[in-house]
Amino acid sequence: MTFQVFGAELAREADVVFDDETDVIVVGTGAGGYAAAVTAAKNGATVIQLEKGDSIGGTTKKAAAAYWVPNNHYMREKGWADPKADALRHMARLTRPQHYDPEKPTLGLTEWEYRMIEAFYDHAGDAIETLTKWGALEGIPWDIQPDYYAQMAENKAPFGRIIYPHLQGGAPTEVGDGTDMIGVFARTADREGVDLRLQHSVERVILDDNDEVIGVIANSATGRVVIRARRAVIFATGGFTHNEELRTSSLPGPIFSGCAASTNTGDFLPIAEALGAELTNMNGAWLAPMVLDRAIANRPDQVCSFSIPGDSMVWVNKYGKRVVNEKSPYQDIVPTFWAWESQKAEYPNLILAMIWDAESKLYHSGDKYGNPMIPDGGDQSHIVSAATIPELADAIRERLASFSASTGGWNLDPSFVENLASTIERYNAFAEAGIDEDFHRGEAPIELYFNMGGRPGNDKNETMWPISATGPYYATLLAPATLDTKGGPRTNAVGRVLNRCGDPIPGLYAAGNCAGAFSGQSYWAGGATLGPIITMGYLAGQDAARQPSRVENAAPAIAS
Amino acid sequence: MTFQVFGAELAREADVVFDDETDVIVVGTGAGGYAAAVTAAKNGATVIQLEKGDSIGGTTKKAAAAYWVPNNHYMREKGWADPKADALRHMARLTRPQHYDPEKPTLGLTEWEYRMIEAFYDHAGDAIETLTKWGALEGIPWDIQPDYYAQMAENKAPFGRIIYPHLQGGAPTEVGDGTDMIGVFARTADREGVDLRLQHSVERVILDDNDEVIGVIANSATGRVVIRARRAVIFATGGFTHNEELRTSSLPGPIFSGCAASTNTGDFLPIAEALGAELTNMNGAWLAPMVLDRAIANRPDQVCSFSIPGDSMVWVNKYGKRVVNEKSPYQDIVPTFWAWESQKAEYPNLILAMIWDAESKLYHSGDKYGNPMIPDGGDQSHIVSAATIPELADAIRERLASFSASTGGWNLDPSFVENLASTIERYNAFAEAGIDEDFHRGEAPIELYFNMGGRPGNDKNETMWPISATGPYYATLLAPATLDTKGGPRTNAVGRVLNRCGDPIPGLYAAGNCAGAFSGQSYWAGGATLGPIITMGYLAGQDAARQPSRVENAAPAIAS
Repeated sequence: MTFQVFGAELAREADVVFDDETDVIVVGTGAGGYAAAVTAAKNGATVIQLEKGDSIGGTTKKAAAAYWVPNNHYMREKGWADPKADALRHMARLTRPQHYDPEKPTLGLTEWEYRMIEAFYDHAGDAIETLTKWGALEGIPWDIQPDYYAQMAENKAPFGRIIYPHLQGGAPTEVGDGTDMIGVFARTADREGVDLRLQHSVERVILDDNDEVIGVIANSATGRVVIRARRAVIFATGGFTHNEELRTSSLPGPIFSGCAASTNTGDFLPIAEALGAELTNMNGAWLAPMVLDRAIANRPDQVCSFSIPGDSMVWVNKYGKRVVNEKSPYQDIVPTFWAWESQKAEYPNLILAMIWDAESKLYHSGDKYGNPMIPDGGDQSHIVSAATIPELADAIRERLASFSASTGGWNLDPSFVENLASTIERYNAFAEAGIDEDFHRGEAPIELYFNMGGRPGNDKNETMWPISATGPYYATLLAPATLDTKGGPRTNAVGRVLNRCGDPIPGLYAAGNCAGAFSGQSYWAGGATLGPIITMGYLAGQDAARQPSRVENAAPAIAS
Repeated sequence: MTFQVFGAELAREADVVFDDETDVIVVGTGAGGYAAAVTAAKNGATVIQLEKGDSIGGTTKKAAAAYWVPNNHYMREKGWADPKADALRHMARLTRPQHYDPEKPTLGLTEWEYRMIEAFYDHAGDAIETLTKWGALEGIPWDIQPDYYAQMAENKAPFGRIIYPHLQGGAPTEVGDGTDMIGVFARTADREGVDLRLQHSVERVILDDNDEVIGVIANSATGRVVIRARRAVIFATGGFTHNEELRTSSLPGPIFSGCAASTNTGDFLPIAEALGAELTNMNGAWLAPMVLDRAIANRPDQVCSFSIPGDSMVWVNKYGKRVVNEKSPYQDIVPTFWAWESQKAEYPNLILAMIWDAESKLYHSGDKYGNPMIPDGGDQSHIVSAATIPELADAIRERLASFSASTGGWNLDPSFVENLASTIERYNAFAEAGIDEDFHRGEAPIELYFNMGGRPGNDKNETMWPISATGPYYATLLAPATLDTKGGPRTNAVGRVLNRCGDPIPGLYAAGNCAGAFSGQSYWAGGATLGPIITMGYLAGQDAARQPSRVENAAPAIAS
C-alpha cells in the first residue's frame, strides 16, 4: 500500500541523484554522534559524519562532560560492586517515583523503559571500556563526586560511576571537560577514516522502494548534497532546546533558553514522525537555571548555572522570599521557577534574584560550572551591585524592566525590600546555627561537593554564612533553562528507531537527546546525560555497521 | 511522490469496499461532535455520527457542562460589554503569562494561538446563538458565577460569559448538567436526520488517490464497517486521559486517572500523525484533584473533585502540612501535587489528605461537583473516620498501604501526627481571624462561590472555621487527575487539521480535546472547556458541509 501523504521530510530514491555513498551516515558530532561514528568505523564500516554547525562538538563541547556508567571497568578494577538488580532499582525508583514497585517484574516502569534501562546497565560498561581501549575516550574516574541522590536507600553505589574526560595535555589525573572529550573523539574518528563534513544540515531522508532509509539530503554551504547510506543512517542531532514553540508546548513549565548547541532545534523529530515514529518523554528535559541576561542574549556560547557556590548568598522570588534550597541539584531547582499562584495569576518565582555580599564574592567567585559570581576583570555585565539592599532592589528592578518584553513584564513586588529584610534575618539565624529549617540547605552530599569548599572558620554548614549587615551587595537574575530536552522517538536496545507499532524502521537509528530518553524526567547523577548517550551511540554504531548492504554491487565494507 | 511508510492508521480507497456513504462523518458524541453533526446537517449535509462507546455523550455527559462564551448573545441582550481587545488580552495573559505583552501584535502568543483565540472570540457568540436558535442548545446564562480569574486586572467582563444547560423538565431558569446538554443535542441531531451509530471505534481513515481523507474504517460490534465521506471527516474523540503511557510522557507531572469518558485513549493522535500533523500543547490538560480511591478503581462513572466545600477542613501532605489554598480553582491546585523534594527523592504532596470534622460534615456534605463529603446513606467507602487525630492518621496509613502498588509505596511520614497538630493549631488561628496568612484561602471571588455558602455565624471568611478539638474526624485522599487532556494536532480557524507545513489535510477536521487547544496550560474560567469545543465543532461542521463532494455522481447534498 502506498501513500502520498505528507512527507516533506522524505524523498524517494528514484527521484534523487546521489552525490556520494558510504556504509553508515552519522548525523551530529556530539558524544553520541562520535561514539556511533567511531564504533561503526571500528566495526568495518565506512562512515560519513555530517555536522549542521560550523564546528564539531555539539552540546558535548560545552559540557563538563562527565559520563555516568554503572558497573564501569574502573569500578570493577577497584573491586567496587554495582550489582545489576540494585542499579536497576535505583534507576527505576528515580525515573518513575510514582510507579516504582520493587516487587513488580519491570519495577513499575513500562516494558520499554525497563528494557532500555536494563540494556544500558548491561552494555554501558563494555561500551565505555571498548571506546577507551580504542583511544576514543580518555577517562578519569571521579570517585569523590557523589551521585545526585547518593543518600537514597536504593543507591548502593553512590560513588564510582562518574567518569570525567582527561584534560588533554594535563597531568594524567587532571580532569578536563567537553572540549577534551570531543578532541579525543575527533582524533580517533579521523584516524579511523571517518569522513567529516561541517555545515551540512540534514533535512530529508531518502527511502528505497521497500521504504528502507538509504540516505539523506543535506543542505550545505555549497548547496544540496545527496548521500547514500548502504547500511544505515544514525541520527545524533540533539534535542529541541532552541525550538521555542515546541518546548513551550512540551516541557512542564516556562523555559527561557538553554545551553544546548544553538543548532539543537529538534530537526530529527519531523523526520522521525514522517517515518511513523511515536514521540515519547516529550515532557522530559535536562534542566538547570541560567542567568537571565545570558538566556535573553541567547548566545551560542551561553552556559547554564549548574552549581553555584556561595555561603552568604540567597535566592529570592519577586516577594523577596526564599523558595528553594539553593544548593539542590540543578535539575531539581528548576520546577520551583514554575510555581503558579492562582489568585494573582502569576509565576511568583519565574525569575529568582541571587543575592550575595562581599565575603561570598571573596571566597566563592569563579566561573566554573556557570557560577555567576564572576571575579573582577571578567564579564560582570549580568551582575548589579549597590551599597544597600534597597538600592540593590532598585538596580534589580531596573534590570528586570529592561527585559520586560521577554518576561511577560515580570518584576519585583513592592513588598520586596521589606520581605527581603525578614528573609535575610531568618536566613542569617539558620546560618548561625548551621541548619536551614526551611529548605535543609547543605544536607545532601552533592550540595557540599558542589559548594566547592567553605570559608575558613565555618565548621557548621559550609554552604551557609550570615549575609553581612553592610554592603556592598551583589545580585544576578536566574531563570529556568535546559541543558537540552530529551524527548523523541523510541528506539530499541541497539538504537533502531521504532514506529508506532513498535517495529524498527529499516535503516534508521537514533542516539542521544534526539531520541526519547529512558530516564523519564529524572537526572540520576552527574553524567547521567552522557553515560546513556555514549552507550547508545556505541550500540547503534555497532549494529549499523553489521547490517547487510542494501546496495547491489556495492563495494564491500572494509574489514576491521 | 508516494511512500509506503508506516501507515497502519491509513487505508487506500482502492483497497476497501464501502459499506455506507454520507456527506460528513462525525466521530464522537460529546458536545464537540454534536455541535459538528447538527451544524453540518443544518447546512445541508447528510451526516453519519460514530460513537466508540455503548452510549452517547462522551465526557460532556459527565460534566457540569458550563460553556464560557465571550460576548455571547445573552450578554449583548443585557447590554453587557465584552470588547474584543480586552477579551483577547485577558485570554492571552492567561494562556502564556510568561510571554504576554499587550504591546505586541499577537500579545506575545504565537501566530497560531493568536489566530485561534481571535477566531474563538469572533465566532463563539454566533455559534452559540445559532445552535440555541436551532434548539441544539438550551442555555441559562449564569451571571452569578465569577470567572476563575475574575479579580485579574485584564478581566473586563468577569461575569456573564458562563452559560449552563437548562435542566430538562425543570423550571425555565433551573440549571442542569451535561446529561441535559447531551439530551438536547441528541434530540436535535435526530430531528435533523443525523445517523447515529454506537460501538463504532474508528481506527483508520481512508485516502483517495489525491491523499484526501474520504472515509473511515470502524470496528463495530458486528465487525469492520467502511464508510465513505463525500465531503469531510470530523474527529471529536476527546483527549488521551486514559492512555497512561502517553499522559506520563506528556503531562507536566504524575496523574492517577481522570474523569474523561473511559473511551478517551487518544485514538485520533496516531491517525493525525500518520497524516503528517504535528501535535501541539501536549503538556496541556484540564486538571482537577480526584479522590484516590476513585482514581484507582478507575470506573467509567468516576468524577473529579472540582470544588470542595467545607470550612473546618484542611488538606495536608505526607508530613501533615498544608501546602495549598484548598479553595483554589481545581486547575491551579493540581501542580501542588507535583512538587518534588530532592533530598528525599520524593513527591511529598503526591497525595493530599483532606481532613474535616463533624461540623463541616453537617454544614457542607453533598456530592455536587465531586464533593467527597458524601452524606450518610451515600457511598462513603472512600472516607475514613476516627475519634482522634492519631487514630485518623492510622486509618489513613492503612488505606494508603492498601494502594501501595499504585502509588510508588507512598505513605505518611512518622512526623505526620505531630505536624498535623501544629498545622491545625495554626489553621485554627487563621480561621478565628478570618485571614489565611499562608495561602489566602477565600480571598478570590471564585473561592467564595465554590464554597457554596458558609455556616451560620461565620461573618469573617466563610471558607474557614476552626477544626474542632474533639472528634469524630474524617479524611479522604486526593490525587492529581485530569478532566481530560488538550493536546493534539493544530487546526485552522474552521477546524481543518494542519500538517507540519501548516497546510490543511484535505477532508480532515478536528474539534475539542482531540485537537491541540489554544488555551495553553490555562483554564480561563468555568466552561472554558466547552465554550471553545462547541464553537470549533460548529465551525468545523459548517465548513465541512460546504466542501464540494469528492465523489462523482454522488447524490447532491440535501438542501437545508
